Amino acid sequence: MMINSKQIKKLIKVASGRIEADLVIRNGKVVDIFNKRIVSGDIAIVDGVIAGIGNYEAKEIYDAKGAYVSSGFIDAHVHIESSLVDPASFSKLLVPHGTTTAIVDPHEICNVAGLDGFDYMLENSANLPLSIFVMFPSCVPSTVFEHAGAILDASKVAQRIDRDRVLGLGEMMDMVGTIEAQDHIVDKLLVAHNANKMIDGHGPMLKDLELNAFAAAGIKTDHECTTAEELTDRLQRGMYVMLREGSATQDLRKLLPAVTKENSRYCLFCTDDRQPFSILEEGHIDNHLRIAVQEGLDPLEALRMATINAAECYSLNDRGAIAPGRRADLVILEDLKNFKVLKVFTGGKEYKEESLSKEAPISKSVLSKVNIGSYSADKLKLKLNSTDVKVIGIQKGSLITTKERATVKVDKDGYYENDPDVDIVKLAVLERHKATGNVGLALLKGLKLNNGAVATTIAHDSHNVIVAGDNDNDMDVAIKELKRVGGGLLIVQNGEVIETLELPIGGLMTNKGGLYVKDKLEALHKVAIEKLGMDSDGDPFTTLSFMALPVIPSLKVTDMGLFDVEKNEFVSIEN
Amino acid sequence: MMINSKQIKKLIKVASGRIEADLVIRNGKVVDIFNKRIVSGDIAIVDGVIAGIGNYEAKEIYDAKGAYVSSGFIDAHVHIESSLVDPASFSKLLVPHGTTTAIVDPHEICNVAGLDGFDYMLENSANLPLSIFVMFPSCVPSTVFEHAGAILDASKVAQRIDRDRVLGLGEMMDMVGTIEAQDHIVDKLLVAHNANKMIDGHGPMLKDLELNAFAAAGIKTDHECTTAEELTDRLQRGMYVMLREGSATQDLRKLLPAVTKENSRYCLFCTDDRQPFSILEEGHIDNHLRIAVQEGLDPLEALRMATINAAECYSLNDRGAIAPGRRADLVILEDLKNFKVLKVFTGGKEYKEESLSKEAPISKSVLSKVNIGSYSADKLKLKLNSTDVKVIGIQKGSLITTKERATVKVDKDGYYENDPDVDIVKLAVLERHKATGNVGLALLKGLKLNNGAVATTIAHDSHNVIVAGDNDNDMDVAIKELKRVGGGLLIVQNGEVIETLELPIGGLMTNKGGLYVKDKLEALHKVAIEKLGMDSDGDPFTTLSFMALPVIPSLKVTDMGLFDVEKNEFVSIEN
Repeated sequence: MMINSKQIKKLIKVASGRIEADLVIRNGKVVDIFNKRIVSGDIAIVDGVIAGIGNYEAKEIYDAKGAYVSSGFIDAHVHIESSLVDPASFSKLLVPHGTTTAIVDPHEICNVAGLDGFDYMLENSANLPLSIFVMFPSCVPSTVFEHAGAILDASKVAQRIDRDRVLGLGEMMDMVGTIEAQDHIVDKLLVAHNANKMIDGHGPMLKDLELNAFAAAGIKTDHECTTAEELTDRLQRGMYVMLREGSATQDLRKLLPAVTKENSRYCLFCTDDRQPFSILEEGHIDNHLRIAVQEGLDPLEALRMATINAAECYSLNDRGAIAPGRRADLVILEDLKNFKVLKVFTGGKEYKEESLSKEAPISKSVLSKVNIGSYSADKLKLKLNSTDVKVIGIQKGSLITTKERATVKVDKDGYYENDPDVDIVKLAVLERHKATGNVGLALLKGLKLNNGAVATTIAHDSHNVIVAGDNDNDMDVAIKELKRVGGGLLIVQNGEVIETLELPIGGLMTNKGGLYVKDKLEALHKVAIEKLGMDSDGDPFTTLSFMALPVIPSLKVTDMGLFDVEKNEFVSIEN
Repeated sequence: MMINSKQIKKLIKVASGRIEADLVIRNGKVVDIFNKRIVSGDIAIVDGVIAGIGNYEAKEIYDAKGAYVSSGFIDAHVHIESSLVDPASFSKLLVPHGTTTAIVDPHEICNVAGLDGFDYMLENSANLPLSIFVMFPSCVPSTVFEHAGAILDASKVAQRIDRDRVLGLGEMMDMVGTIEAQDHIVDKLLVAHNANKMIDGHGPMLKDLELNAFAAAGIKTDHECTTAEELTDRLQRGMYVMLREGSATQDLRKLLPAVTKENSRYCLFCTDDRQPFSILEEGHIDNHLRIAVQEGLDPLEALRMATINAAECYSLNDRGAIAPGRRADLVILEDLKNFKVLKVFTGGKEYKEESLSKEAPISKSVLSKVNIGSYSADKLKLKLNSTDVKVIGIQKGSLITTKERATVKVDKDGYYENDPDVDIVKLAVLERHKATGNVGLALLKGLKLNNGAVATTIAHDSHNVIVAGDNDNDMDVAIKELKRVGGGLLIVQNGEVIETLELPIGGLMTNKGGLYVKDKLEALHKVAIEKLGMDSDGDPFTTLSFMALPVIPSLKVTDMGLFDVEKNEFVSIEN
């Protein structure tokens, strides 16, 4: 944070008590995060910055009435796109829960819109109550086996790495490429390293010498630990570990046993992916705090993980504590058990509840990315040379698919025909960025879809159009509707679109806010169960969104065709 | 630390075990500083950097034979000039004690030689076994009441702050100027702040709102705490506290009771000022470790303070731990109680004992700074208008002097005459930087000097010539000899120089090494006692070196005359 002479002089004068503060927070139990204790005293604030704790006077007094005062919480790693809202709406969801800083990796929108996506996220996240810092996505595209909207190589990293609020290189997911020191990976790492910037990691299951190599490459964090041992292993290598509690992936309880007084300074909290319903119903980092304390962690230790540890990890020296010269991001908490947030101050301003439904304008550069080119319904037709086929098998609660084998029906011309008595549907992935007209087809078992189609433009990591259905007409209607609305999630039955969550920002996010997302997701869920007969404990859109990700075993489909992840090659549907 | 593609690829390949390391340290009890535990495994090193801990092969094996292996120690704040040796010699003193990094503030040489002094220290400290980082001195000159050799204002700070190995702005000693937000102070602070660099502090006794103001000014460290409460107070403001154990000032035992498991991560070790005899006889940071553990601190907690905490404080992310990608600065320790250093590796190289007497060349820019201009012996004559005079009173073991009053003898022309029965001698301070010919005179009580003169070019902070004697002739001989040898410490009796420690580098340092300094200081001490009858438990040179420092009460003398510190003005000798 740059500061000028006038600002610092005023700050020093307020701190020393020679001039009045803008605001004083009085009668709080103030968290001294450095000594891990509670102190008393007025918190003096001027120009959005804390001048000090002591006896102060101010134009405005906020009476904390004996409640606790902590520094604002930091989400150390999150993909805003997973919440399906734009940054401005994301801020409105988080701040009421005490999160005042988020470090975001716009990996999804960059896969769709490249640097335009990055710039949109950077611009749309400026000057919000929530301070948003951005990591430059390291893996766009994430594989060569599908077509994404952009290629962000080292030269692109260099173009953005020194921008204001850009903290470094986002989670390096190409573990193999890193451990093998492949040129294109090393080039990106070096740009960040030599700009003295952070490099986030993504290292599930890595251990021993491979983990050493990952750390030696300059990777400083990991949020993919799921066991206590993995956490300790990463800390030993000088990495920070983020304890994740997302909507889909919940690791916090599993990892807490490894967090000790001795090593907690290198532990942070993150959500990674968290949807509006989870945030609205369970909370955000306040939810981490509640769980951590329930599980026996000392409340002030937990607060350290939610504040100063993350600030130190990312060298955000202007925040993370209630101390002179730090940003006045403050949370008033009823207690240190339930962490009920009574009031939030961001940059010294009292946060007033905002409407969750107000629409923000959308930058043209990221609007509507459903360029399916020469697509026509014919492309959905699946010609088979044999009825003995490979089928992608869904495993409930897992991103890993199985390789199934089935005998299916074909019509007189040799085209695949749906059998309503068998739980197999057609799956299509349509390239939507460069209008290549690419369509990949596959068969999917376990979706339990009857009479209709579900479709989405969220399909990790390239976010092509993915659609599943038991008849081509509904699939075709779904695809055309996605194109019309600019992307989203929708369900079609009997040729009619019966429910849609529109995501016109790159086909990933809406500008209509968190409540719209929550309501629409609930409506889609209801329709999927009631009209298409799908399982009530599943989410077809989340399931579909990972069907095109060819880095997770076993059988997947991209716009280029059916892909065997273990063999690392495209395969024919027929056996 | 910049790194290139070839280096990082090799490092990653060694870390992953695909190619051999340069060196492996085997059979060590390896300190995992992050989890605060001991682990086992080979430490693999390539190109001076740690690749990892695990099962590794290498060209060269070092067998630690069950000893402990720690990362090298860091002295977080030290003035090399206080050791009286040049940086190259300083390295030779420290490394055998396990200190592999020092953060130095060349405040003294900069007072003498300005930017030339700074550049000399930066150049002379490059590529040594000891890694030396440099803070740009913030207070040159330290007051307007004496003439120093240079004025280093904000523009000078800006000229050097971004240089390699320059970490920030050195200890801000002008507490009043800072708390009052004076322009010239704020200007310097802003240069450091906006270059994203560190700012060290010097805040003895500061508390409450004044301490808030000091911290609000961006000051991040303090090494002047002497009470447990002061330590806790500074941590609460987000400052790091250095526990100092120097030759003259020993605060470690006083501060340790305030260091807890909760706050120790913000505590560091420093020596500030430490002379060769202390280093050679007691040690350096290894001495801190011994004392800390004796006093009950957990040994691994103590090691954190000696390594990773300092690295984090100064963002030295390439060191401070035994972890992949960090510099292979390693110390083999017999145990974690006495911390006997068995072997040191710096940058992956086994440190071989070096001669402590080898001379290094001296840069011309800092050679001989004894420019006393038009000085002649006449200037030592003290004309008095009254025999009722003010006398500076020495207090044993304190830098604070008293204001004494005495009746002295004058000769027939009204000039002060020494009375051998009274413990009062003449004191002269001669400006030596700009050849102004300025001489300040005073009378000094308590030195117990008989028949001779002691003289030095070390006189904080401007380092003018200071000489005390009971006769003008010996004083004159002493001054002329200091000029001839280019500065140092010396004793004269009966017109003969009887012992000299030559300090030709700016009159502050020798290039003859630590043993020369130790031997010569012992010889000077012996002569002072045996020939001049001085106290055996005192050190006349240290006493003299603070007599010209007009920021410590009560009565001092600069090249501009007698100065009353409380009144903040020059005063006449006569009452």
